Amino acid sequence: MENTNLQHYSHKRFNILTGEWVLVSPHRAKRPWQGQNEEISEEQRPAYDENCYLCAGNTRINGELNPKYSDVFVFTNDFAALQNDSPKFGVNDGLFKAESETGICKVICFSPDHSKSLADMSSKEIQKVVFAWQKEYTELAIEPTINYVQIFENKGAVMGCSNPHPHGQIWSQSTLPNEVDKKNTQQSSYYKEKKSSLLGDYLNQELKTKERIIFENNDFVVLVPFWAIWPFETMIVPKKQRKSILELNIQESLNFAESISVITKAYDKLFNTSFPYSSGIHQAPTNGLNNSHWHFHMSFYPPLLRSASVKKFMVGYEMFGTPQRDITAEQAATRLRDLI
Amino acid sequence: MENTNLQHYSHKRFNILTGEWVLVSPHRAKRPWQGQNEEISEEQRPAYDENCYLCAGNTRINGELNPKYSDVFVFTNDFAALQNDSPKFGVNDGLFKAESETGICKVICFSPDHSKSLADMSSKEIQKVVFAWQKEYTELAIEPTINYVQIFENKGAVMGCSNPHPHGQIWSQSTLPNEVDKKNTQQSSYYKEKKSSLLGDYLNQELKTKERIIFENNDFVVLVPFWAIWPFETMIVPKKQRKSILELNIQESLNFAESISVITKAYDKLFNTSFPYSSGIHQAPTNGLNNSHWHFHMSFYPPLLRSASVKKFMVGYEMFGTPQRDITAEQAATRLRDLI
Ligand SMILES: O=P(O)(O)O[C@H]1O[C@H](CO)[C@@H](O)[C@H](O)[C@H]1O
Ligand SMILES: O=P(O)(O)O[C@H]1O[C@H](CO)[C@@H](O)[C@H](O)[C@H]1O
Repeated sequence: MENTNLQHYSHKRFNILTGEWVLVSPHRAKRPWQGQNEEISEEQRPAYDENCYLCAGNTRINGELNPKYSDVFVFTNDFAALQNDSPKFGVNDGLFKAESETGICKVICFSPDHSKSLADMSSKEIQKVVFAWQKEYTELAIEPTINYVQIFENKGAVMGCSNPHPHGQIWSQSTLPNEVDKKNTQQSSYYKEKKSSLLGDYLNQELKTKERIIFENNDFVVLVPFWAIWPFETMIVPKKQRKSILELNIQESLNFAESISVITKAYDKLFNTSFPYSSGIHQAPTNGLNNSHWHFHMSFYPPLLRSASVKKFMVGYEMFGTPQRDITAEQAATRLRDLI
Repeated sequence: MENTNLQHYSHKRFNILTGEWVLVSPHRAKRPWQGQNEEISEEQRPAYDENCYLCAGNTRINGELNPKYSDVFVFTNDFAALQNDSPKFGVNDGLFKAESETGICKVICFSPDHSKSLADMSSKEIQKVVFAWQKEYTELAIEPTINYVQIFENKGAVMGCSNPHPHGQIWSQSTLPNEVDKKNTQQSSYYKEKKSSLLGDYLNQELKTKERIIFENNDFVVLVPFWAIWPFETMIVPKKQRKSILELNIQESLNFAESISVITKAYDKLFNTSFPYSSGIHQAPTNGLNNSHWHFHMSFYPPLLRSASVKKFMVGYEMFGTPQRDITAEQAATRLRDLI
């Protein structure tokens, strides 16, 4: 039973996965927008672009030739932020503290078709992307220096994506990134106390109220989390506890792909534009530990707020204080659900 | 003595104030940029704009008339994210956790001159802004419901600033925002153990190596913190421990103003543009406690990376993992120092 105060008055909500808060100002959605408008690209892309370094058969910046791939193609990032051959070192000099960090960064092309995005692909086609993620996760996990694998996608120029060809990235490294570390701690202490999955218990609660549920199939739920930061942030959660994408059987991986398909299609309809976002999968570290507290999930952080050209800026107060949102999670869920 | 590995290989650095990490990839600065370019506004603004709702004598959206102010002008935000008259409530329903949050939001015009920014103002003029911050901090601190006062500025359209008239904001509220809470914890535990200021001790270490120092006067130091996230992030720190801006005497407030003047002028020279940023002051909460562990500081988070039109995107990996930077803090400090 939802407290109606949450729809009318400023409040903060607790993120059970990170232990941090979000400030919600439902009354503020009415303020007029006088700030920057994003450019909308109406450009129809061709299925093949001879200048694209991700298209099949083309040459990349470092001179390597892409194969004539027909579905998914993975290669090591030519400008990787993490390298696997750098020396191990540390700085522990008073209040200056640093540690070397090694890793492997990969690029994954979702389709040879330059004109597509995940929203234009079928569930079966997206399942091939899931298979590729599983393969990469497995192979990287074996590397002794790799203890965490971050799968993500930046979609759209406004999300810093430098090439419109449908692709994502995988950055893997030896230590847990900040956000993963927070979620590891929160899930672990809950699991120790309750002997059950934090996210599993949360999901059961959500499935009872249904207020924030957008879509579900046999194995997955798509919802706007109670503590969502971005205006139309969503999360895909497996109904049964799965520590990582590796634990999905064939049917589950197809249902995962269907969930991705449904939410990305709804996003494109929302403002009638190829909807920009960053998405990412948080899952069990590959550190050789049991990680029985982990319940994997995929999140979408889209920046758009009111239209294809007006985004939410996470700036001053958000950077120095707490993330802040105007429309509530429930309002966002209602709008997205209506598009499915 | 700096470890030269820090200039060549990927590593992570520890932020002593938040307890979180930043990933540094010095070798990555070489990658070609093929992504979105920001629009550069070459527009010369007039000293007065009849359509600006912040100019002296003009009418605001809610019908109120601005006075014919001659230096600094403060008013309550017409579209405040926090309100002071909303009911107190809480949600504590299993894994749904929320709390009402009240507060007061203000807008502070730095100058009646529509064409200026802090970088175009004299130290004496900026000192008047500091005086106004002090007055607001004092008045808000008295309110029993206000326990923290966040002073900040969003400058530039790319930072979500909806009006180019020189202005900042003050959001004050009953609980500590996420970022302040982290810094409160880190400073407090250091102070308990060492009986000295975390930031004071850090500053002494920085003043010895000088590698990241950009400018200093009798009372303040401007530096690129060892753990800086944004390409040209800087921090202004008082040499003597001051818990808040309230503890500055007249001479110190002028030296604080001079530091703001020096760094904003250097920023404008860097890419020959009115440099966008979000800035903010982190200082002691107004919660009636002693807060002897607090050492106030002002930070600048500017998004530009390579030129007036190419910014650093904090997206996929940064949102799901850890903030990542390409040029090192030392390289940024050298470039900024050369512009002073
Ligand atoms: O208050 P403004 O300038 O209209 O709005 C700007 O600053 C606020 C505080 O950082 C943010 O919440 C908004 O997203 C941003 O557009
Ligand atoms: O790797 P890309 O697509 O060139 O770069 C983009 O994604 C990276 C990972 O989130 C970010 O570090 C960059 O700032 C962004 O522009």
